[in-house]
This record gives sequence, C-alpha cells and structure tokens, in this order.
Amino acid sequence: MSKLQIPAGYRFSARASGIKKSGKADIGLIFSLQPAACAGVFTCNKVVAAPVTLTRNRIACGQCQAILVNSGNANACTGQAGRDLAEQSSALVAAELNLSPNLVAVASTGVIGERLTLAPFAGAVPGLVEDSRPDSALAVAEAMMTTDAFSKTASVRVAGASPYTILGLAKGAGMIHPNMATMLAFVLTDAPIEQEFLNQALHRAVENSFNAISVDGDTSTNDTVLLLANGAAQGPLITSASAAAETFVRQLEQLLLKLAKMIVKDGEGATKLVRIRVVGAADESAARNVARSVATSLLAKTAFFGEDPNWGRIIAAVGYAGSGLDPERIDIDFDRVAVVRNGVAIDPYCEEDAVAVLRQDEFEVRIGLQQGNAEASYYTSDLGHEYIRINADYRS
Amino acid sequence: MSKLQIPAGYRFSARASGIKKSGKADIGLIFSLQPAACAGVFTCNKVVAAPVTLTRNRIACGQCQAILVNSGNANACTGQAGRDLAEQSSALVAAELNLSPNLVAVASTGVIGERLTLAPFAGAVPGLVEDSRPDSALAVAEAMMTTDAFSKTASVRVAGASPYTILGLAKGAGMIHPNMATMLAFVLTDAPIEQEFLNQALHRAVENSFNAISVDGDTSTNDTVLLLANGAAQGPLITSASAAAETFVRQLEQLLLKLAKMIVKDGEGATKLVRIRVVGAADESAARNVARSVATSLLAKTAFFGEDPNWGRIIAAVGYAGSGLDPERIDIDFDRVAVVRNGVAIDPYCEEDAVAVLRQDEFEVRIGLQQGNAEASYYTSDLGHEYIRINADYRS
Repeated sequence: MSKLQIPAGYRFSARASGIKKSGKADIGLIFSLQPAACAGVFTCNKVVAAPVTLTRNRIACGQCQAILVNSGNANACTGQAGRDLAEQSSALVAAELNLSPNLVAVASTGVIGERLTLAPFAGAVPGLVEDSRPDSALAVAEAMMTTDAFSKTASVRVAGASPYTILGLAKGAGMIHPNMATMLAFVLTDAPIEQEFLNQALHRAVENSFNAISVDGDTSTNDTVLLLANGAAQGPLITSASAAAETFVRQLEQLLLKLAKMIVKDGEGATKLVRIRVVGAADESAARNVARSVATSLLAKTAFFGEDPNWGRIIAAVGYAGSGLDPERIDIDFDRVAVVRNGVAIDPYCEEDAVAVLRQDEFEVRIGLQQGNAEASYYTSDLGHEYIRINADYRS
Repeated sequence: MSKLQIPAGYRFSARASGIKKSGKADIGLIFSLQPAACAGVFTCNKVVAAPVTLTRNRIACGQCQAILVNSGNANACTGQAGRDLAEQSSALVAAELNLSPNLVAVASTGVIGERLTLAPFAGAVPGLVEDSRPDSALAVAEAMMTTDAFSKTASVRVAGASPYTILGLAKGAGMIHPNMATMLAFVLTDAPIEQEFLNQALHRAVENSFNAISVDGDTSTNDTVLLLANGAAQGPLITSASAAAETFVRQLEQLLLKLAKMIVKDGEGATKLVRIRVVGAADESAARNVARSVATSLLAKTAFFGEDPNWGRIIAAVGYAGSGLDPERIDIDFDRVAVVRNGVAIDPYCEEDAVAVLRQDEFEVRIGLQQGNAEASYYTSDLGHEYIRINADYRS
C-alpha cells in the first residue's frame, strides 16, 4: 500500500482509554488548525444515537474544527445520560483546544444500550491534544475499529495549478445489510471549498459509494460521514461553478468507493468482493432495486462463498425485487461468461467456465433486464462461516 | 407424535424416480376418489416456475382431483421445455387415473434452471397409481423434502354433528427470508366445503401462518399452497354462513401455524424458535413491518444463536422498519424479563435473567410501541453455522 498522503493543517492522535475491555486504542481525535467547511451524511434509522444528534445539529452551521471518535460503545439508546455524555465529552475537547464546543463533532461505535461514562474521555483528552501529530492518521483509523479486521484509509494527491490532498479514514465491516453495522467515515481535505458545494459533492459521492454497498433506510443507529475542507492548501475557492469542481467530485467519489470496497472486503468473514451490476433497466431506481435485492440475498451470497454458479438463486432474487420486469428477458453473466439469456440457461452452458469466475477473489455478476438504458451497481461479499462466528459471539 | 389422521377418500404414494441424485424418494402423488373443491395460494415472485403457472390456471375453475409433486428440480427458468414438461407429466397422471388433465395439479421444488425430463415421471406414474394407499401420506411428505431435515405433517380430527378431518403435508426450511426457499403445502379435508368459502378460509389462514414466517413479496419461484375439500365425510356443505365456518377457519389456521412453525424450526441449522411479537402498534401493517424487520435481522438472529440478549440489535432493527415510530417509547421484553422501557435499558437490568430466556429452545421477544392497540407476530429462528454449511454446499 502506498504511503498515506496527509492534507495540510490537520492533526491526529489516538489512545486506549479503557472503553474497550481488550485495552486496545478506542478514542481518536482529529482536528484542523483552523475552522473547516463541513458537510455530513447521517443514519436514516429512526433510532439515532446521541452523538449523531449532537453532531448533526452542530454541523448544520457548515463548520467544524475537531472530531472526537470512540469505539467500544455506541452511546445509543442511552437516554438523557447519553445526550449529556456526548455534550460533555465534546466540551473536554473544546476546552483543551480552546474552541467553541459548536465546532466539535463526536461519533461513537460499538455496543448499543450500554452507558458510557465521562471518565475515559476525561482521562484521555489532554494527552490526545498533547500528542497530536500530522502523521498519526492511521492510529485514529485503528482506534475506530470494532469488528473490523483491518483499518481503512485512502488518500489522493490531486495535481494541478492548485494542488490539494484528500484523506479518508473509515470503519465498518460489510454484512448482508452492511448499514446495520455502524459505518463511520471522516474525509479531510486541505482544498478550499465552498460549503454548499461541499455538501452537494458529499451527497453525490456517498450515493455511488457507501450507499452502493448498503440498503437505503437499513442504517445503524450511529452511521456518520463527515467531510472537512480547511483550505490550508490555499488556491481559489472551489464552488459548483469552478473548473476544478468536477475533478474534486470525481476524486472524492473514487476515494469513497475505495473505502466502501474495503468495508465490503472486510465483510465479517468475507472472502470475495462481488460487483452486482444491473444494466438495461427502465430507470436507475429499478436498477438499484434489483442490484440491492441480489446483493443482499443470503442464498446468492452463500453460493458465492461455495463458488457455486447457482444462477437460479440470482434470478429468484431478481424476481422478487422487480415490479414490472419481464422474467423472460433476464440475462446473467459472470464476468465474461454468459450464463442466462432471456430467462433460460444458455444451452450448452459451460458450468466450469462459470466456476472459474467464482473462484476469483473479485468478480462481476451482470444482470441485463432489456428494458431500457439505466444501470446501477452494488458491491457485496460472500457469506461464510466467519460471519456467524463473529456475530454470534460479538460483544466488544 | 400422535398418529396422523387421514381424511376419507384420499390416496397417497411416493417413489424414487432418479431426479434426486441421492436415490431418495422424489415423486409423490395425492389424489381424491372424487373431484374436490380447491383453493390455492402461490408465489408472488415475478419469476414463476412452470408448474405454478399451470396449476394456478387449472385450479381457477375451483376444482382439483390429483396433485403430482416432485423434489430435486424446481422446473423453474426452463422456458417452453419446462412448460411442456409440466403439462406432459400431469397428462401421465390424468391418463393413468382416467381424469381430465384439468383436474391434475403439479408442483416442483429443487434446483432452479436445470432441465427436467419426462422419463422419471413416465417411469414412476403407473406404479404411483398402483401403489396408492390411504396411509402413505407420510411417504409423500418425505418425497417433497429438499434441504428439510425432517418431514412436516399435521392433522386434526374435528368433532361435532358432522365430524371431519384436516391433514396437511408441507416442505420448506426456514431462512432469513423463509420464502426464498420453496415452500409447498398440501392440505386435504373430507369436509364438504363451498369453493368460495374455501378460498377465503385459505387466504385468511395463510396470512397468519405461512405469511407470518415469511417476507411478503420475497417468495421463491415455486411456492404453492393447495387446499382440497372432497366432501367424503358427508354432512351439510360448509359456507361462510354456516355455523361450522368459524370452527373450520380456526382449525385450518392452527394446523397451518403448526406446519409453519415446523418450517421455522427446520430453519437450516436453526436451534431455536423465536416469536417476534409486536404490540401497541398504530395499525396491523405497522406491527407487521416491525415484526418482520426484527425477524429477518441477521444480527438479531445470530445473537439468538449466541444466546446473547443484545437488545441493541433488536432496537436497531425496529428503528429502520418504522416510519412514524417514537424511539423513546419502545419497550422490549424477553418472555417475562423486561429489558427496555421507553427506549432505554432498564436500570438495573439483570442480564442473567435475559440470558436464561434465550437459553430456551423457544421464547418470545415482545416489542411494545406504545402507539395503539394493533399487534402482529412473526416466527423466526436463530442463525448458526449450519445455515452456511447447508447453503454454501447445496445442490440437490
């Protein structure tokens, strides 16, 4: 893996505060040396954790300077005590950095419903500020982990007249409904970006990355994506009218997709990354429905694990997704191996070729609907024994 | 288990025809000595197997006399050849029994997309008719099995001035989305029942049994429930206006619920039967949505397997199901152990008591919404290692 590029003007640090019983790092701090434009995307779950409510309100003004994140406890379903704790922990950071508390965002991930106390934060925050460095981003990514098998970071240096850097830190392990596991992502850039455009760019990029591995609406209580732009790289302000706007959106989308794929690959026990690509749909929403249906089909996912080109399970999942689709026009290919044409197996159909595709770590299942020109993709993993082991035993 | 009660005027037989590579019984025949009133409920999948299409058309006239069922091959996504095969196999039965083919229903379950040939049927049908007996119902239930660990039968003798018997044979192994596995059920009674009422009764009973273990719309390509009433028990015709109508519906519903619970218990690797009961909902549809959301939550199901009273996973599943619900009014109990009140864990909450509930083979998770008086239940299983083993390896 190439060296992580760090945008100018950010500091990072992480500590083990005792929230995680394992004694591993569980609190991370990110801050910018100057207030940054900020945009966020949050869970759609009706049950919303206290830190999400607080952070959503605070970034509504479009600015943020620090992010305090903890793992091991989601601070969700904890009532007034949880709301107080979110506020108090952010106040510790604000005091230590001499900022308005309104510029401090908080995020938590871990077990739902257990009380989180202030003591670990009170103990950790002074040291976090003192130890903060530009090169500790990876330590923060590690402190965010729960069931994650590996930390997730990506960065890109964007060249040009006014070069800048984008860095992303994420946590989350894909599942059947990946959003049920908390997904946190903090994306930091030193480009100078107008807040309104920053918000548009983030929503667009999330749609084709984190939302393409997840089920709309099936979000956890804590999902949070924050994007900060502190302008430390200098140069002219990027707005939706800038020549640089399109590049920024494209780079952001690619970076988020890279992180999203890491989440799928880390799908608790996953051994394969599978792109479910639906083409020829009447419209994008129909394409997305079908892709999601297949991507979340347990029977399809266990077949991928078994390297079994059991396309019947795929076509069944297509069938229950689709209002208005014509079963006798469904085509299925595994990478370049055509398997189904017009709803019926190709005859003769070479199962060996299909098995060879499924033996790979990454492959594409292409589903053609012959109804129009719209397409959509979802990324999913296979479902194996490890998923059960991790989730039957998990209590961090 | 009590001895199976057999309604008068039905014959049964089963054979190994070679469709299943294992050499186990894979074709079953049920017929009535006289034409029976008939009602059916079929898959909602857009991809519909050939036998479903044929049977749905044939029973539209309200009558049926014979059911030919095979396992090992679903005859789905097999195009014109599959449609021809469904028709031809039924014609063999019609000829052998000297019936109109319109009185012969067919049903298939097994792998999707593989060609089924007429040879196994041609070989088996004459012997099936010759060997048919009133007491071979269990053999038919066994011949219907695919991934089922046990055959599913239930019967009831209904006393009264005009006594009658109801017998049900079913196959299906519950899953996350139980309907994704083909569910077949054949219910036979010797009561004399008007066809229109028979149809109403079946739909009502299915709603509270097979549809309470499954996800509406997420049906397999082959799901079929047929209810035959041949009147051989004599007595006055039961219509919706009869005094006997209510008893029949109740008995039918209980019988189907018994079969439905067997399907959940046989949930590929399931070790527990869990009732998800939602009370205090604004309306029944809201209650059903929440119950379904929890019943199909992988995280909840793996927690049940781990005997972990991880109510956070339950409340998260409630949260993404519910439009219009108030997270701060959610209550959760495991049997009689109160765990959550108004969205927050009871304090002090005795985890040991909750664990004791989850250690049982059967228990109830009650979710109160404090929004109204409607309730609904779903039955679900835990999700363990066996599920993966069976479904990653399965090709019958």
